[in-house]
Amino acid sequence: MKLYDGGRAPNPRRVRVFLAEKGVSVPLVPVDMAAMEHRGETMTRLNPLQRLPILELDDGTVLTETVAICRYFEELSPEPALFGRGALGRAVVEMWQRRIEFGLFGAVAAAFRHLHPAMREWEVPQVSEWGEANKPKAREFLHFLDSELAGRQFIAGDVLSIADITGFVAVQFMKPARIEMPEGLDHVRRWYDDIAARPSASA
Amino acid sequence: MKLYDGGRAPNPRRVRVFLAEKGVSVPLVPVDMAAMEHRGETMTRLNPLQRLPILELDDGTVLTETVAICRYFEELSPEPALFGRGALGRAVVEMWQRRIEFGLFGAVAAAFRHLHPAMREWEVPQVSEWGEANKPKAREFLHFLDSELAGRQFIAGDVLSIADITGFVAVQFMKPARIEMPEGLDHVRRWYDDIAARPSASA
Repeated sequence: MKLYDGGRAPNPRRVRVFLAEKGVSVPLVPVDMAAMEHRGETMTRLNPLQRLPILELDDGTVLTETVAICRYFEELSPEPALFGRGALGRAVVEMWQRRIEFGLFGAVAAAFRHLHPAMREWEVPQVSEWGEANKPKAREFLHFLDSELAGRQFIAGDVLSIADITGFVAVQFMKPARIEMPEGLDHVRRWYDDIAARPSASA
Repeated sequence: MKLYDGGRAPNPRRVRVFLAEKGVSVPLVPVDMAAMEHRGETMTRLNPLQRLPILELDDGTVLTETVAICRYFEELSPEPALFGRGALGRAVVEMWQRRIEFGLFGAVAAAFRHLHPAMREWEVPQVSEWGEANKPKAREFLHFLDSELAGRQFIAGDVLSIADITGFVAVQFMKPARIEMPEGLDHVRRWYDDIAARPSASA
Protein backbone atom coordinates (compact mmCIF):
# COMPACT_ATOMS: atom_id res chain seq x y z
CA MET A 1 0.00 0.00 0.00
CA LYS A 2 0.97 3.65 -0.24
CA LEU A 3 -0.17 6.86 1.37
CA TYR A 4 -0.44 10.01 -0.73
CA ASP A 5 0.70 12.65 1.69
CA GLY A 6 0.22 16.41 1.79
CA GLY A 7 3.18 17.58 3.87
CA ARG A 8 2.29 20.30 6.36
CA ALA A 9 -1.47 20.27 5.76
CA PRO A 10 -3.31 19.26 8.95
CA ASN A 11 -5.24 16.21 7.72
CA PRO A 12 -2.25 14.37 6.22
CA ARG A 13 -0.42 15.23 9.44
CA ARG A 14 -3.12 13.65 11.61
CA VAL A 15 -2.62 10.36 9.77
CA ARG A 16 1.18 10.52 10.09
CA VAL A 17 0.99 11.17 13.85
CA PHE A 18 -1.56 8.34 14.19
CA LEU A 19 0.73 5.91 12.33
CA ALA A 20 3.71 6.97 14.45
CA GLU A 21 1.71 6.21 17.63
CA LYS A 22 0.83 2.82 16.16
CA GLY A 23 4.42 2.15 15.20
CA VAL A 24 3.25 1.45 11.66
CA SER A 25 5.30 2.50 8.66
CA VAL A 26 3.64 3.08 5.29
CA PRO A 27 5.43 4.25 2.11
CA LEU A 28 4.57 7.92 1.55
CA VAL A 29 4.04 9.50 -1.86
CA PRO A 30 4.55 13.26 -1.48
CA VAL A 31 1.94 15.41 -3.24
CA ASP A 32 2.78 19.08 -3.72
CA MET A 33 -0.36 20.81 -2.52
CA ALA A 34 1.11 24.29 -2.99
CA ALA A 35 1.44 23.43 -6.71
CA MET A 36 -2.19 22.15 -6.62
CA GLU A 37 -1.00 18.64 -7.50
CA HIS A 38 -3.90 17.20 -5.45
CA ARG A 39 -6.25 18.68 -8.02
CA GLY A 40 -4.36 17.23 -10.99
CA GLU A 41 -5.55 14.34 -13.15
CA THR A 42 -3.85 11.49 -11.23
CA MET A 43 -5.07 12.58 -7.81
CA THR A 44 -8.58 13.42 -9.06
CA ARG A 45 -8.88 9.90 -10.46
CA LEU A 46 -8.01 8.53 -7.01
CA ASN A 47 -10.23 10.99 -5.13
CA PRO A 48 -12.78 12.97 -7.17
CA LEU A 49 -13.20 15.23 -4.11
CA GLN A 50 -9.55 16.28 -4.59
CA ARG A 51 -8.52 16.00 -0.98
CA LEU A 52 -5.60 14.42 0.81
CA PRO A 53 -4.58 12.08 2.36
CA ILE A 54 -5.39 9.10 0.13
CA LEU A 55 -4.50 5.48 0.93
CA GLU A 56 -4.12 3.16 -2.03
CA LEU A 57 -4.04 -0.57 -1.29
CA ASP A 58 -2.03 -3.07 -3.33
CA ASP A 59 -5.17 -4.25 -5.17
CA GLY A 60 -5.95 -0.66 -6.20
CA THR A 61 -8.67 -0.06 -3.58
CA VAL A 62 -8.68 3.59 -2.57
CA LEU A 63 -9.54 4.90 0.90
CA THR A 64 -9.93 8.61 1.56
CA GLU A 65 -10.89 10.66 4.62
CA THR A 66 -8.38 10.98 7.45
CA VAL A 67 -10.43 9.17 10.08
CA ALA A 68 -11.41 6.33 7.71
CA ILE A 69 -7.72 5.73 6.96
CA CYS A 70 -6.88 5.81 10.68
CA ARG A 71 -9.74 3.41 11.45
CA TYR A 72 -8.42 0.98 8.83
CA PHE A 73 -5.02 0.93 10.53
CA GLU A 74 -6.72 0.51 13.92
CA GLU A 75 -8.30 -2.66 12.54
CA LEU A 76 -5.02 -3.93 11.05
CA SER A 77 -2.89 -3.05 14.10
CA PRO A 78 -5.22 -2.92 17.13
CA GLU A 79 -2.49 -2.02 19.66
CA PRO A 80 -2.20 0.52 21.10
CA ALA A 81 -5.96 1.15 20.78
CA LEU A 82 -6.45 4.75 19.66
CA PHE A 83 -10.21 4.50 19.05
CA GLY A 84 -10.96 3.30 22.59
CA ARG A 85 -11.69 -0.06 24.21
CA GLY A 86 -15.06 -1.73 24.77
CA ALA A 87 -18.50 -0.56 23.63
CA LEU A 88 -18.68 2.47 25.89
CA GLY A 89 -14.98 3.35 25.56
CA ARG A 90 -15.19 3.40 21.77
CA ALA A 91 -18.34 5.52 21.90
CA VAL A 92 -16.66 8.00 24.26
CA VAL A 93 -13.68 8.35 21.90
CA GLU A 94 -16.08 8.89 18.99
CA MET A 95 -17.90 11.56 21.01
CA TRP A 96 -14.70 13.44 21.84
CA GLN A 97 -13.25 13.03 18.39
CA ARG A 98 -16.36 14.71 16.99
CA ARG A 99 -16.51 17.41 19.64
CA ILE A 100 -12.88 18.30 18.85
CA GLU A 101 -13.42 18.11 15.10
CA PHE A 102 -16.51 20.32 15.03
CA GLY A 103 -15.69 22.62 17.94
CA LEU A 104 -11.97 23.17 17.43
CA PHE A 105 -10.40 21.63 14.31
CA GLY A 106 -13.25 22.75 12.05
CA ALA A 107 -13.35 26.25 13.52
CA VAL A 108 -9.58 26.72 13.12
CA ALA A 109 -9.71 25.35 9.56
CA ALA A 110 -12.57 27.73 8.68
CA ALA A 111 -10.62 30.73 10.02
CA PHE A 112 -7.56 29.67 8.01
CA ARG A 113 -9.35 28.86 4.77
CA HIS A 114 -11.59 31.91 4.73
CA LEU A 115 -9.02 34.50 5.81
CA HIS A 116 -5.56 33.45 4.62
CA PRO A 117 -4.52 35.03 1.30
CA ALA A 118 -2.84 31.76 0.23
CA MET A 119 -6.24 30.03 0.38
CA ARG A 120 -7.90 32.28 -2.19
CA GLU A 121 -7.84 29.63 -4.94
CA TRP A 122 -8.66 26.81 -2.53
CA GLU A 123 -11.72 28.11 -0.76
CA VAL A 124 -14.12 29.64 -3.28
CA PRO A 125 -15.70 31.90 -2.26
CA GLN A 126 -13.65 33.00 0.71
CA VAL A 127 -16.13 34.50 3.17
CA SER A 128 -14.05 36.60 5.53
CA GLU A 129 -16.97 37.28 7.86
CA TRP A 130 -17.32 33.52 8.37
CA GLY A 131 -13.58 33.17 8.94
CA GLU A 132 -13.69 35.86 11.65
CA ALA A 133 -16.79 34.32 13.25
CA ASN A 134 -14.86 31.11 13.81
CA LYS A 135 -12.04 32.65 15.85
CA PRO A 136 -14.14 33.24 19.00
CA LYS A 137 -15.82 29.84 18.45
CA ALA A 138 -12.41 28.12 18.63
CA ARG A 139 -11.39 30.11 21.72
CA GLU A 140 -14.69 29.40 23.48
CA PHE A 141 -14.29 25.70 22.82
CA LEU A 142 -10.78 25.79 24.31
CA HIS A 143 -12.24 27.16 27.56
CA PHE A 144 -14.66 24.24 27.64
CA LEU A 145 -11.83 21.82 26.90
CA ASP A 146 -9.76 23.32 29.71
CA SER A 147 -12.51 22.64 32.24
CA GLU A 148 -12.72 19.04 30.99
CA LEU A 149 -8.96 18.48 31.08
CA ALA A 150 -8.91 19.59 34.73
CA GLY A 151 -10.22 16.13 35.57
CA ARG A 152 -8.18 13.78 33.39
CA GLN A 153 -4.92 13.38 31.50
CA PHE A 154 -6.17 12.98 27.94
CA ILE A 155 -9.19 14.28 26.06
CA ALA A 156 -11.23 11.08 26.08
CA GLY A 157 -9.94 9.55 29.33
CA ASP A 158 -6.75 8.23 30.89
CA VAL A 159 -5.07 7.07 27.69
CA LEU A 160 -4.16 8.75 24.42
CA SER A 161 -6.75 8.52 21.64
CA ILE A 162 -7.28 9.86 18.14
CA ALA A 163 -9.15 12.79 19.75
CA ASP A 164 -5.84 13.97 21.26
CA ILE A 165 -4.14 13.76 17.86
CA THR A 166 -6.92 15.81 16.25
CA GLY A 167 -6.77 18.33 19.10
CA PHE A 168 -2.99 18.59 18.99
CA VAL A 169 -2.89 19.22 15.23
CA ALA A 170 -5.74 21.73 15.59
CA VAL A 171 -3.89 23.73 18.27
CA GLN A 172 -0.76 23.84 16.09
CA PHE A 173 -2.93 24.94 13.16
CA MET A 174 -4.04 27.98 15.21
CA LYS A 175 -0.74 29.70 14.40
CA PRO A 176 -1.19 29.96 10.59
CA ALA A 177 -4.90 30.61 11.25
CA ARG A 178 -3.85 33.55 13.47
CA ILE A 179 -5.89 32.53 16.47
CA GLU A 180 -4.25 33.25 19.80
CA MET A 181 -4.44 30.75 22.63
CA PRO A 182 -6.52 32.33 25.42
CA GLU A 183 -4.52 33.00 28.59
CA GLY A 184 -4.94 30.98 31.74
CA LEU A 185 -5.86 27.66 30.17
CA ASP A 186 -3.42 25.74 32.34
CA HIS A 187 -4.95 22.32 31.72
CA VAL A 188 -4.93 22.74 27.96
CA ARG A 189 -1.31 23.90 28.19
CA ARG A 190 -0.29 20.88 30.31
CA TRP A 191 -2.12 18.52 27.92
CA TYR A 192 -0.57 20.18 24.84
CA ASP A 193 2.97 20.00 26.27
CA ASP A 194 2.45 16.30 27.08
CA ILE A 195 1.44 15.50 23.50
CA ALA A 196 4.16 17.72 22.01
CA ALA A 197 6.79 15.80 23.99
CA ARG A 198 5.85 12.45 22.42
CA PRO A 199 8.07 11.18 19.58
CA SER A 200 5.00 11.06 17.27
CA ALA A 201 4.64 14.85 17.47
CA SER A 202 7.33 15.36 14.84
CA ALA A 203 5.71 12.99 12.32
CA MET B 1 -31.19 4.32 29.54
CA LYS B 2 -33.02 7.23 27.94
CA LEU B 3 -32.56 9.31 24.83
CA TYR B 4 -33.18 13.05 24.98
CA ASP B 5 -34.75 13.71 21.62
CA GLY B 6 -35.17 16.87 19.58
CA GLY B 7 -38.17 16.07 17.38
CA ARG B 8 -37.78 17.24 13.80
CA ALA B 9 -34.16 18.41 14.06
CA PRO B 10 -31.92 16.37 11.74
CA ASN B 11 -29.42 14.93 14.23
CA PRO B 12 -31.99 13.49 16.67
CA ARG B 13 -33.76 12.12 13.61
CA ARG B 14 -30.62 10.32 12.39
CA VAL B 15 -30.45 8.43 15.69
CA ARG B 16 -34.15 7.50 15.58
CA VAL B 17 -33.87 6.15 12.02
CA PHE B 18 -30.72 4.25 13.01
CA LEU B 19 -32.47 2.67 16.02
CA ALA B 20 -35.48 1.74 13.85
CA GLU B 21 -33.15 -0.04 11.40
CA LYS B 22 -31.58 -1.88 14.35
CA GLY B 23 -34.98 -2.80 15.74
CA VAL B 24 -33.91 -1.27 19.07
CA SER B 25 -36.36 0.64 21.22
CA VAL B 26 -35.11 3.27 23.69
CA PRO B 27 -37.33 5.46 25.91
CA LEU B 28 -37.39 8.97 24.44
CA VAL B 29 -37.49 12.15 26.50
CA PRO B 30 -38.83 14.94 24.26
CA VAL B 31 -36.93 18.22 24.49
CA ASP B 32 -38.64 21.31 23.06
CA MET B 33 -35.91 22.86 20.93
CA ALA B 34 -38.20 25.61 19.63
CA ALA B 35 -38.54 26.74 23.27
CA MET B 36 -34.73 26.50 23.62
CA GLU B 37 -35.12 23.80 26.27
CA HIS B 38 -31.84 22.22 25.07
CA ARG B 39 -30.08 25.34 26.35
CA GLY B 40 -31.76 25.20 29.75
CA GLU B 41 -30.08 24.21 33.00
CA THR B 42 -30.93 20.49 32.95
CA MET B 43 -29.77 19.90 29.38
CA THR B 44 -26.65 22.06 29.79
CA ARG B 45 -25.62 19.96 32.78
CA LEU B 46 -25.89 16.84 30.60
CA ASN B 47 -24.20 18.44 27.58
CA PRO B 48 -22.34 21.72 28.12
CA LEU B 49 -22.26 22.10 24.33
CA GLN B 50 -26.08 22.35 24.43
CA ARG B 51 -26.76 20.01 21.56
CA LEU B 52 -29.12 17.09 21.04
CA PRO B 53 -29.46 14.13 21.00
CA ILE B 54 -28.10 13.02 24.39
CA LEU B 55 -28.07 9.41 25.61
CA GLU B 56 -28.10 8.94 29.39
CA LEU B 57 -27.25 5.46 30.69
CA ASP B 58 -28.73 3.99 33.83
CA ASP B 59 -25.55 4.71 35.80
CA GLY B 60 -25.69 8.38 34.79
CA THR B 61 -23.02 8.16 32.07
CA VAL B 62 -23.79 10.66 29.31
CA LEU B 63 -23.05 10.15 25.61
CA THR B 64 -23.50 12.95 23.12
CA GLU B 65 -22.85 13.29 19.37
CA THR B 66 -25.16 11.50 16.96
CA VAL B 67 -22.57 9.14 15.51
CA ALA B 68 -21.12 8.26 18.95
CA ILE B 69 -24.61 7.27 20.14
CA CYS B 70 -25.19 5.23 16.97
CA ARG B 71 -21.81 3.53 17.36
CA TYR B 72 -22.68 2.56 20.94
CA PHE B 73 -25.86 0.84 19.74
CA GLU B 74 -23.88 -0.85 16.94
CA GLU B 75 -21.70 -2.38 19.66
CA LEU B 76 -24.66 -3.44 21.82
CA SER B 77 -26.73 -4.79 18.88
CA PRO B 78 -24.32 -5.68 16.08
CA GLU B 79 -27.00 -6.88 13.61
CA PRO B 80 -27.78 -5.60 11.10
CA ALA B 81 -24.31 -4.04 10.82
CA LEU B 82 -24.75 -0.37 9.88
CA PHE B 83 -21.09 0.61 10.28
CA GLY B 84 -19.83 -2.02 7.81
CA ARG B 85 -18.24 -5.46 8.11
CA GLY B 86 -14.55 -6.33 8.29
CA ALA B 87 -11.57 -3.97 8.43
CA LEU B 88 -11.96 -2.59 4.92
CA GLY B 89 -15.77 -2.58 5.00
CA ARG B 90 -15.84 -0.53 8.20
CA ALA B 91 -13.26 1.89 6.78
CA VAL B 92 -15.32 2.33 3.60
CA VAL B 93 -18.45 3.14 5.62
CA GLU B 94 -16.44 5.64 7.66
CA MET B 95 -15.18 7.23 4.44
CA TRP B 96 -18.67 7.61 2.98
CA GLN B 97 -20.21 8.70 6.25
CA ARG B 98 -17.68 11.53 6.35
CA ARG B 99 -18.00 12.42 2.68
CA ILE B 100 -21.77 12.71 3.16
CA GLU B 101 -21.46 14.62 6.42
CA PHE B 102 -18.98 17.19 5.12
CA GLY B 103 -20.13 17.40 1.51
CA LEU B 104 -23.90 17.24 1.91
CA PHE B 105 -25.25 17.21 5.48
CA GLY B 106 -22.90 19.97 6.62
CA ALA B 107 -23.54 22.13 3.56
CA VAL B 108 -27.33 21.82 3.91
CA ALA B 109 -27.11 22.56 7.64
CA ALA B 110 -24.96 25.65 6.99
CA ALA B 111 -27.46 26.98 4.42
CA PHE B 112 -30.31 26.43 6.89
CA ARG B 113 -28.62 27.84 9.96
CA HIS B 114 -27.15 30.91 8.26
CA LEU B 115 -30.18 31.87 6.17
CA HIS B 116 -33.36 30.81 7.96
CA PRO B 117 -34.95 33.59 10.07
CA ALA B 118 -35.88 31.04 12.77
CA MET B 119 -32.17 30.34 13.31
CA ARG B 120 -31.26 33.92 14.22
CA GLU B 121 -30.86 33.14 17.94
CA TRP B 122 -29.24 29.75 17.29
CA GLU B 123 -26.48 30.65 14.90
CA VAL B 124 -24.69 33.76 16.11
CA PRO B 125 -23.62 35.49 13.97
CA GLN B 126 -25.66 34.38 11.00
CA VAL B 127 -23.45 34.91 7.95
CA SER B 128 -25.81 34.95 4.99
CA GLU B 129 -22.97 34.97 2.45
CA TRP B 130 -21.73 31.69 3.94
CA GLY B 131 -25.24 30.25 3.88
CA GLU B 132 -25.58 31.09 0.18
CA ALA B 133 -22.11 29.72 -0.61
CA ASN B 134 -23.19 26.33 0.70
CA LYS B 135 -26.14 25.87 -1.64
CA PRO B 136 -24.05 25.23 -4.77
CA LYS B 137 -21.65 23.11 -2.67
CA ALA B 138 -24.54 20.80 -1.70
CA ARG B 139 -25.81 20.60 -5.30
CA GLU B 140 -22.32 19.90 -6.66
CA PHE B 141 -21.88 17.08 -4.15
CA LEU B 142 -25.20 15.56 -5.24
CA HIS B 143 -23.90 15.36 -8.83
CA PHE B 144 -20.85 13.48 -7.55
CA LEU B 145 -23.08 11.20 -5.47
CA ASP B 146 -25.27 10.51 -8.50
CA SER B 147 -22.28 9.29 -10.50
CA GLU B 148 -21.30 7.02 -7.59
CA LEU B 149 -24.81 5.62 -7.12
CA ALA B 150 -24.88 4.63 -10.80
CA GLY B 151 -22.74 1.66 -9.82
CA ARG B 152 -24.31 0.36 -6.60
CA GLN B 153 -27.50 0.25 -4.59
CA PHE B 154 -26.42 2.06 -1.43
CA ILE B 155 -23.93 4.82 -0.69
CA ALA B 156 -21.19 2.64 0.80
CA GLY B 157 -21.87 -0.59 -1.09
CA ASP B 158 -24.55 -3.23 -1.53
CA VAL B 159 -26.11 -2.94 1.92
CA LEU B 160 -27.60 -0.09 3.90
CA SER B 161 -25.22 1.77 6.23
CA ILE B 162 -25.26 4.80 8.49
CA ALA B 163 -24.03 6.83 5.48
CA ASP B 164 -27.42 6.25 3.80
CA ILE B 165 -29.24 7.43 6.92
CA THR B 166 -27.13 10.59 7.05
CA GLY B 167 -27.68 11.16 3.32
CA PHE B 168 -31.42 10.55 3.53
CA VAL B 169 -31.91 12.98 6.43
CA ALA B 170 -29.70 15.54 4.64
CA VAL B 171 -31.80 15.37 1.45
CA GLN B 172 -35.01 15.86 3.45
CA PHE B 173 -33.34 18.78 5.24
CA MET B 174 -32.85 20.48 1.84
CA LYS B 175 -36.51 21.55 1.87
CA PRO B 176 -36.39 23.82 4.97
CA ALA B 177 -32.91 24.90 3.81
CA ARG B 178 -34.48 25.92 0.49
CA ILE B 179 -32.05 24.01 -1.69
CA GLU B 180 -33.58 22.51 -4.79
CA MET B 181 -32.63 19.03 -5.92
CA PRO B 182 -30.79 19.38 -9.28
CA GLU B 183 -32.67 17.84 -12.20
CA GLY B 184 -31.58 14.64 -13.90
CA LEU B 185 -30.03 12.92 -10.88
CA ASP B 186 -31.81 9.65 -11.59
CA HIS B 187 -29.54 7.51 -9.40
CA VAL B 188 -29.91 9.79 -6.39
CA ARG B 189 -33.68 9.79 -6.94
CA ARG B 190 -33.82 5.97 -7.13
CA TRP B 191 -31.67 5.68 -3.98
CA TYR B 192 -33.75 8.26 -2.11
CA ASP B 193 -37.03 6.55 -3.02
CA ASP B 194 -35.63 3.21 -1.82
CA ILE B 195 -34.70 4.63 1.58
CA ALA B 196 -37.94 6.60 1.90
CA ALA B 197 -39.92 3.36 1.35
CA ARG B 198 -38.31 1.66 4.38
CA PRO B 199 -40.35 1.54 7.60
CA SER B 200 -37.50 3.35 9.41
CA ALA B 201 -38.02 6.46 7.28
CA SER B 202 -40.94 7.60 9.43
CA ALA B 203 -38.98 7.31 12.69
